[in-house]
Amino acid sequence: MTTSSSIPGAEVDLGALTLRADLRGKSPYGAPQLDVAVRLNTNENPYPPPPELVADVAESVREVAAHLHRYPDRDALALRGDLAAYLRGVTGVELAAANLWAANGSNEVLQQIMQAFGGPGRTALGFAPSYSMHPIIAAGTRTEWVAAPRRADFSLDAAAAVRAIEEHRPDIVFVTSPNNPTGQAVPLDDLRLLLAAAPGIVVLDEAYGEFSAAPSGVRLLAEFPTRLIVSRTMSKAFAFAGGRLGYLAAAPAVVDALQLVRLPYHLSVLVQAAARAALRHTEATLGSVAALVAERERVAAALSGLGFSVVHSDANFLLFGRFGDPAAAWQAYLDGDVLIRDVGIPGRLRMTVGTPVENEAFLRASEEVAARFDIG
Amino acid sequence: MTTSSSIPGAEVDLGALTLRADLRGKSPYGAPQLDVAVRLNTNENPYPPPPELVADVAESVREVAAHLHRYPDRDALALRGDLAAYLRGVTGVELAAANLWAANGSNEVLQQIMQAFGGPGRTALGFAPSYSMHPIIAAGTRTEWVAAPRRADFSLDAAAAVRAIEEHRPDIVFVTSPNNPTGQAVPLDDLRLLLAAAPGIVVLDEAYGEFSAAPSGVRLLAEFPTRLIVSRTMSKAFAFAGGRLGYLAAAPAVVDALQLVRLPYHLSVLVQAAARAALRHTEATLGSVAALVAERERVAAALSGLGFSVVHSDANFLLFGRFGDPAAAWQAYLDGDVLIRDVGIPGRLRMTVGTPVENEAFLRASEEVAARFDIG
Repeated sequence: MTTSSSIPGAEVDLGALTLRADLRGKSPYGAPQLDVAVRLNTNENPYPPPPELVADVAESVREVAAHLHRYPDRDALALRGDLAAYLRGVTGVELAAANLWAANGSNEVLQQIMQAFGGPGRTALGFAPSYSMHPIIAAGTRTEWVAAPRRADFSLDAAAAVRAIEEHRPDIVFVTSPNNPTGQAVPLDDLRLLLAAAPGIVVLDEAYGEFSAAPSGVRLLAEFPTRLIVSRTMSKAFAFAGGRLGYLAAAPAVVDALQLVRLPYHLSVLVQAAARAALRHTEATLGSVAALVAERERVAAALSGLGFSVVHSDANFLLFGRFGDPAAAWQAYLDGDVLIRDVGIPGRLRMTVGTPVENEAFLRASEEVAARFDIG
Repeated sequence: MTTSSSIPGAEVDLGALTLRADLRGKSPYGAPQLDVAVRLNTNENPYPPPPELVADVAESVREVAAHLHRYPDRDALALRGDLAAYLRGVTGVELAAANLWAANGSNEVLQQIMQAFGGPGRTALGFAPSYSMHPIIAAGTRTEWVAAPRRADFSLDAAAAVRAIEEHRPDIVFVTSPNNPTGQAVPLDDLRLLLAAAPGIVVLDEAYGEFSAAPSGVRLLAEFPTRLIVSRTMSKAFAFAGGRLGYLAAAPAVVDALQLVRLPYHLSVLVQAAARAALRHTEATLGSVAALVAERERVAAALSGLGFSVVHSDANFLLFGRFGDPAAAWQAYLDGDVLIRDVGIPGRLRMTVGTPVENEAFLRASEEVAARFDIG
């Protein structure tokens, strides 16, 4: 950030601070936030919220704003009840508010889980490549991180995963289904094997669950109540990324445990009210999911037709390649006004499935990229 | 929470989970959230936001809600610019957005500070009694906590504080001014002594700064850019407790450091937009501060007149006593429909200064309490 020399402390640089040694030289996490016509880089739902949802959010916020001088309900009970009702409808599992917990994005949910069940002297294990915030939040909570591999096609080899769990005996296992940034869902039977092998908590990250035909791991909660936490988000299918609402389903005792580490009043009345309003319009919002899944299949086929190798996806994004130089290809897309994501996987880039118009722009750019670059 | 036996995991209790050993047997932080007529327990501003602020919040949220499917500005630059402008006006210090950082309540700000500058192997020191979340957030980030004493009248003895800093060499020193839950502000000259002695970061917690006539420590930022962080909040004077907006002022490099530990997209578009709207109505909101300060002095005098011992306060609350049995006295207030706070200081209770009507109800209850209980 450009700073004027007249502001206090402008002359100080990071090296002059008593920052923790393990943070020195690091860069903040985050995809570039660029003003580009076609943004297919952060797996958002490309469809804006319908006008009736916007109106409901505004009116709900107007009501609670009259009491902004008062702290919010610390336990967010009404919102948790609404989330339970939504998940009951999706999964058929008899969930109550006591099974649900919510925070400012699933990142905060995951951080609370690591504070309660991880931390110094404890270990978390994930199957790489996966959601890059998992190891970052582990580091932030001083939880030792172990990365176990996936198959060459990025799918999860359940037998190998069980062996990794038995070898490392992690306090927390992260399983992402569908996996970000690769796309594949994990079948319930494979999850059962992992849960049976895990000595501690298994966090099943279902951020992209609504895009997948695979059944939710919520169905396994009754079977593994001391092991399983299913984390979810309203940032993706729900088109609520700006509202920052992550949540989880687990045994009530797990929710009690998280209340020991959560910051009090962590969820503003604004977020609680707006999320409840958004949940009243679930049908309209999730109406876009089928269209996005159809577009995903169309774009995957078109990419294959252009000679790209495309990883099977159950989510709202596609990992594709193989690029001799993914950074140069990423820049070529950007030069064509299409922002996608270089997730650091050799030879691959990730694109978020957008609207048909956005996907067409992406495919036109892909034709050029295929012509100009080595995609062998 | 009551749970039906049919919900998943209802039969599991906390002891069956692989919770961290240091969390076993603990209770969640938080004052009871009770439905009582007169709530003088969490130092909120008793005056609801004016209608024009409520309307501005609702309209601002309506605008951003149209883009809820997109992630928020991760750096919250516009909000930080507005906060800088507000603090410039209050302190006369030439602050820019680069000096400001914001999060979901000052609790999250403080947690980020401890993650960056504290953590395992590092020590934080505070002067007890003070804000009870300081040691809790230290524990949550595995920062060792050292409590140094205050004078018997709860004021800060700067010379003794310097000796404590020299003895313990803490990585972080917490100074709360005005101090919660006791009330006294710390003069700039005393802060200078502490800052000169501190080997690491000094967090000056000015959550109640607007209620004090003492100048803000922001004026010392240019002098101690590698040491000083001033944390503040919109929860108190700003009447924005429900919006959960904490912020800090520091050297730009300190803000850069915090971006290494913050969770990406931690601040929703809803909170960013609503806080900016609230900042446009600063004059109206802070108009209540003078009235609250006058009421504080009136209530303090009345309590003294009833025979209570009242600690001098520069904030919007009063610590008073001395009770032979503060828990019983607290309950007597509650039975009289007045909710105040038992902050765990022997012989004392804390009341938040409310509206004149609320304060009258409190004083009527105080008459009864003075008659019934030992307040010697």
